[in-house]
Parts: sequence; C-alpha cells; structure tokens
Amino acid sequence: MNFRDTMKINDKGVLEIGGCDCVKLVERYGSPLFVMDEQYIRDVCRAYKKTIESTYGNGNMAYASKAFCCKAIYEIMQEEGVCIDVVSGGEIYTAVKAGFDLNNAYFHGNNKLQTELKLAIDNGIGTIVVDNVDEADVIDRLARENNTIQKVLIRINPGVEAHTHSFIQTAKVDSKFGFSIKNSDALDVIKLLKSKKNIRFAGLHCHIGSQIFDKKAFALAVDVVTDYVAQLASEEGIEVDELNFGGGFGVHYAEGDPKYNVEEYCDYVKLLTLTLKDCVERKGIKMPKFMIEPGRSIVGEAGITLYTIGAIKDIKGIRKYVAIDGGMTDNIRCALYDAKYEAILAGRANEKCNDVVTVAGKCCESGDIIIKDLALPKAKRGDILAVFTTGAYCYAMSSNYNRNLTPAVVFVKDGKSAVAVKAQTYEDIVRADVSLDYDN
Amino acid sequence: MNFRDTMKINDKGVLEIGGCDCVKLVERYGSPLFVMDEQYIRDVCRAYKKTIESTYGNGNMAYASKAFCCKAIYEIMQEEGVCIDVVSGGEIYTAVKAGFDLNNAYFHGNNKLQTELKLAIDNGIGTIVVDNVDEADVIDRLARENNTIQKVLIRINPGVEAHTHSFIQTAKVDSKFGFSIKNSDALDVIKLLKSKKNIRFAGLHCHIGSQIFDKKAFALAVDVVTDYVAQLASEEGIEVDELNFGGGFGVHYAEGDPKYNVEEYCDYVKLLTLTLKDCVERKGIKMPKFMIEPGRSIVGEAGITLYTIGAIKDIKGIRKYVAIDGGMTDNIRCALYDAKYEAILAGRANEKCNDVVTVAGKCCESGDIIIKDLALPKAKRGDILAVFTTGAYCYAMSSNYNRNLTPAVVFVKDGKSAVAVKAQTYEDIVRADVSLDYDN
Repeated sequence: MNFRDTMKINDKGVLEIGGCDCVKLVERYGSPLFVMDEQYIRDVCRAYKKTIESTYGNGNMAYASKAFCCKAIYEIMQEEGVCIDVVSGGEIYTAVKAGFDLNNAYFHGNNKLQTELKLAIDNGIGTIVVDNVDEADVIDRLARENNTIQKVLIRINPGVEAHTHSFIQTAKVDSKFGFSIKNSDALDVIKLLKSKKNIRFAGLHCHIGSQIFDKKAFALAVDVVTDYVAQLASEEGIEVDELNFGGGFGVHYAEGDPKYNVEEYCDYVKLLTLTLKDCVERKGIKMPKFMIEPGRSIVGEAGITLYTIGAIKDIKGIRKYVAIDGGMTDNIRCALYDAKYEAILAGRANEKCNDVVTVAGKCCESGDIIIKDLALPKAKRGDILAVFTTGAYCYAMSSNYNRNLTPAVVFVKDGKSAVAVKAQTYEDIVRADVSLDYDN
Repeated sequence: MNFRDTMKINDKGVLEIGGCDCVKLVERYGSPLFVMDEQYIRDVCRAYKKTIESTYGNGNMAYASKAFCCKAIYEIMQEEGVCIDVVSGGEIYTAVKAGFDLNNAYFHGNNKLQTELKLAIDNGIGTIVVDNVDEADVIDRLARENNTIQKVLIRINPGVEAHTHSFIQTAKVDSKFGFSIKNSDALDVIKLLKSKKNIRFAGLHCHIGSQIFDKKAFALAVDVVTDYVAQLASEEGIEVDELNFGGGFGVHYAEGDPKYNVEEYCDYVKLLTLTLKDCVERKGIKMPKFMIEPGRSIVGEAGITLYTIGAIKDIKGIRKYVAIDGGMTDNIRCALYDAKYEAILAGRANEKCNDVVTVAGKCCESGDIIIKDLALPKAKRGDILAVFTTGAYCYAMSSNYNRNLTPAVVFVKDGKSAVAVKAQTYEDIVRADVSLDYDN
C-alpha cells in the first residue's frame, strides 16, 4: 500500500481517507463508491506549479482531464490557478459548466470534430493542439467568425517512445498522434498554420508515453525537441514561444512500482525544467514557456474504490474467489491492460492477512477479475474492500455493461465528504431507451 | 463481409440494411450510429425456437441480453415468445419497463446482490440460476415473503472449456462461475436448495465458453452433464427437470471465421438437442426441458456501426491512419480482446479497394484502433464507414471515456427505421455532476 499523508488506519483499525472513515462513507453513500482525496489533488497541483515557477519561471501545468473528468475537478483546477487539457466536446462542455476559464485550456485530439472545434472556439479556448492538416482551415474560419486570433501548438512526434521501465529512440513513429520531425511533415503544417490570418502558431507539444518511471526518457525528449526548435530557428527563421511536454509520470499501483511522495513526483518536473534550461542555453534558442500535462499522477493515488464483499467461492486446491459488487464496469483497467492493484479490508485494516484470495467482479464475464492472489484477513460477506490508486481511468472509463450502475464519486477533505458525481439509478439506465415506432 | 439476407448494395453503390440506405441513416440520425436489423434478429430467434420444437419438443431459447440490452430488444423477445437471460438489476428493470413477462426470464450472476434478488423475485422472475451457496437463504426468505415457490437451477462446471477453435476437458475448473461436479460442491448445493420450503430445484445450467466454432465441445458438455444427471438419479434419487446449456455459438467477425446462414446456426442447436435425446435414451434418464441462451449469434451480425471519416494521416512508408468519429468508447472489443472487424465505405460500396488503411478511433489513447490494415477505396473526409458484426458487446460495453457521447441505436426493418436508444447529449454527460458542498 502507498498511504498518502491524508490516509491512515485509525485506532479502530478502520481505513480513513481525508479524515473520513471508509466504512461510514459506504454506509452513507452506498457501494461501490469512488472516493477522491481533495487535499492530495491540490497538494500535487501546488507542488508541480511551484516547482515550475521556482526552477524555470514562465510556465504552468495543465491537468489532463481524461484521467478523471467531472465538474468538481475543474472547479478545483480553477481555484488552484492551473490549466487543463481537454480532449472532446464533452470535456469542454463540462469545463464550461464548471465555470472554468477556457482560456487556460489546451484542446487535444487526433480527430477533433468540427462541432467540437466550434464549441471550443466559441467558448474562448486558449490553445488548440493541432494534430491534423485539415484543422488549419477549420480553426482559421471559426476564429475569423469569432473575430479572434486562435493560438495553436502542433503535436509532434519526437521519436522517443517510453514505457514503464524502458524507452527507445526511433526515427519512424507509427502513431495516430503527431507529425514527424524526421521528415518535413511537422514543418509543412507549421508553415500552413503560419499562413493563416486568424491563427497564431505558438509552439510544439509532445507526449512520449504513459506510466513512465525511467525519467531519462523525458530528458531525451527535451533534447530532441529543442534540437528541432534550434533547427526551426536557424533554417526557417521560425520562433517557438511555448513547449508542452505532455504527461506520463508513473504512479504506484502495486508491488514493483516505486512509491513517490509529492516532492519526489516533482523530480519529474525538475528534470524537465532543468534539462530545458540547459538545452536553451547550450543551443542558443529563445526561452519558451514551459508546460506539462500530468493527469494520472494528480488523481491516480488520490482515489480509492470501496466495494462490499458478497459471494465467496472456495474451489478447494485451486482458488478462493471473493466477489465484489462492482468490477470491470467501474475498473476496466484490469481486463484491458492487465493492471495490478492493491487492496485491504477497510474495516479490519490491522488484522493479519492470513488468507489469499482472488477478487472477482460481478459481471457475467470470466475475465472480470480485479486482483489475483491478494493477501487479506479471512473475508466475509459485508466486509468493505478498499482498492487503492483508482482515481485515474476508472470512473473515466466506466461503463454500463450488464446494465450495472455507475457508482457515485465522493470527494473527502478534513473529515468531511461531498458528492461530486451522483450514483446512477435504474431510472437513469433506461432514460434513453425508446419503444420502437416505425410510423415516422 | 458476411452480408445477411437483409443487407445489400443498392444500384447507387450504397450499403442498405433492412431496406434502409446507410448514408441516409447517418444524415437523419447522426454519426456514429448503431444500426440493428430487426428482421435478422427475429429470423434467428424463430429458427432456434422452431429447431428446438421440431428436433426435441419441450424447450425454448433465452436471449442472453448482456450482448445487447435496451427496452426495444425485450419487446421483440416478448413478441417472439422466447425467454431472456438477465444478469443484473439493471437488465431486470429494463425488461420490466419493456413489459416483458419476467416469468420467462433466467437470472444469472456469480454475485447477485440482495437488492437484485429482491427486484427479481418481487417482479416474478421465472428462474434463478443459483451460483453461490449464500443465495439459498436469501431466495427462500424473499420467496416466502412473496408467498411463492421460487424455481431455481444451479450453475455447474462440467469441466469442458471451449474456445473459438478448440476445447479441453478438465477435472479442475478455475472459474468464478459454477459449482464443480467432480467433487461434492454441486451436490451439497442441490441438497441445500431442496431443503428450503420456498425453493423448487428444477435442474442444471452450464456455459462452456464464448465464440465457439468447434461444435463437438457442445456434444461433450451434453454427455458430461447427462452423466451427472444419471448419477444424481441413481445415487441420490434426485430428479432433474430442466437442462440449460448456455450460449457460446461463434459468429463471423472477420476473415478466418466461418460464415453461417440462419439454418447453419441451427446446426448448433440440433447437435445439442439430438445429442441430448440420444443421451437421455442411452442413460435411461427422465427427458428434461431443454434450454439454450444464445446472445451474440442473435444480435451480433444483426448490427453494424456507421462512422463518419474525419482526419486522415498518411505516415509515408509506415501506415495510413483514417480516423473515425467514434472508437473504443463505442467498441472496446478491439482494445480488450484484440477483436477483428470488417468494414466498407457505405456510400461507395462497389468501388475498388485500392488502398490499405488503419482505422483509428478519436480517443486520446494510442490503443484506440478499430481495424488494422483494412482494404478500402481511397477514403476521404465525410465518407461513411460501415463496420460489420457490431450488434453484440459494443453498445452494451460502451463508455463515456474522454466524455465522448454514446451514439444512438436505430432499428431498421422493411425500409423503415426507428430509434431504440436516443443519442447522448452534452447535457446528459454532466447530469450527475455536482459542485462540491462540504457543508452537510
């Protein structure tokens, strides 16, 4: 387990998060339940922002909201004075409804729909990260209709591909994202954008991977990108005002993953800013604005999921299955990425783990398994299971498969709790269903 | 492509399904769009039902609604006089709202919640397939409260595990589903159920796998299960009134999968019924009621998804990406199971396929790829892509990842169309979001 500062086991042996007793949270809000630790989210944002300011100066972080999106998280980001990264009309709409100043938003996507670009520009989106040639004309037209000059970056492929514990440098990147800087693809787009009256080309964006622990990958990306910036300046006379290095900082899910505290997470940021400063000096380029887009490292470890244990099936000599009242509908990452998780019995957190079980979801699918071979005290029906590091890509990817209901999301802080997303009801589930009427 | 009888390319070179022009469907209902061929669904149900009646007699099919669930599909099943299989409170609620007679429903699940069992029994569920020892007490109590005797089957593990092109027989089944018949697990549960006053033990259920093409697996399952039935009769004096062999019939997704017409699908059923009749005679057991639970083979090939092509990115010498306005949010099967699909340009269906592309979804995730290396005519922005065999486990597993909207589902028949599930709106997407209020 990777207990954050705002998590502890209280003197009754019950897990607390944000000062709230997890068993009482389930009693109050139902089960399953997503719980988000607001203070931890704010702490990481503040630390990232402060690190950028103290080690570099001109820059900020943008929260990658695809990790976890709802109105409440945008309200927090607005209060923290950080930017956000959005990837769809739905995220933009949510941010607008939350009162987020869209001037501080970066809009990404390999296939932004024209309706999405219109929604973004009509609402004063700060930056669009262009990822397709066709976008130039559409953005230019929409900006003109809004009597504005639209700031854009372009997404480039630096040829650095990073995975959890390794990274490679490659000349040929096979990805639906970005433009190559190894041939003329990126330059062609930059020239096109610069030719448009209602577009201001501001700089470059890259994203080298997800759940990365080998920090050298980020240093390499900075080196490659600044080489390209120097080349643009010297060969094309094109100035770059802003560099955005995306996200990908790895978090602790289970044994084998490092456990970082907030300060250690800032080492990712420092490495990026200090490498960038060094490159800027060495290569004689203009000092650009610095941006990063962390998502998982802000909300991932801030979240836990609370489940109630139901059926227990002990197949002698083979495996003991402990079934929960959720599963792949609220956490598809196990089935999708073979993701590992840690968990404890929230109400019996100090008891000795003298049993080994497999945590099965309730979906009618053999693959709906959340954790294999988990050490637990001998669990019984009604126990509350707390699964850690579920703040990112769990609620965000939740589905109604089997017509299971999406759980509520509750934020906790200083011993208080507040609903951020209401639990789905059966009535919600049939809301869009219509009886067939072929008459029209 | 596996064109069903109700699909064709019309004289304008446009794909039609159920007599409806696919390009016009998108113009009318938007994009992406799930389209379901009602006649095909009815044809398969009728053929299965008729085959059971003509080759066996006492029996029926139950539509496995987890493959595709909404009110409209239950209305169709009600009209066709077939049963349904449900796996959650959400599916039960939907069936009730659709006016389906729940007496013809089978309720499955490895971890049925007590609230779900209550919803089921209060609404007169016909059969509960017990999959956990704890259920006995709860069902008995709820049935007593409703002044009824609840019919139940138990889910057993016959030790036959079938995959697409192979199957194995194993003594030890490692699954969250079912009770072993190789030790006393199943018998213990049967005895427990028979001891309850408000429960009627009616028989056995098994399910050996999904997307199975090797029919011999089903024959083996029938043999193993009837051996157990004979053993129960001779050793324990326990009679079995009903045998339910679950689902798992494979459908055509892409090259390499057989292409069956409706009659050929009935070969699965015939093999089951004829093997069962033979086993009943040979083993001298009472002739049980026969049930199957097909899902995918009823709705899978009945469904197509229509997308609009947007960004096209040609990475010279590497890959040409054609991006669609949907992706893993409406079809997670590619990312989850590495599922293969076939597709054509719906509006240019007769044109020569002289290009090879990779169909990428719009999600901000590298893995959001729907089809690799698809032969197509040279696609352009605005073309409609029709992806085949998306009727099962696509809408059912859809999510709002990236806060993308869930597409509408439209049914087509005899040249007419009708909405079955309304498209989600931005307003729907924030409906459950709440601003944090820690006061209470």
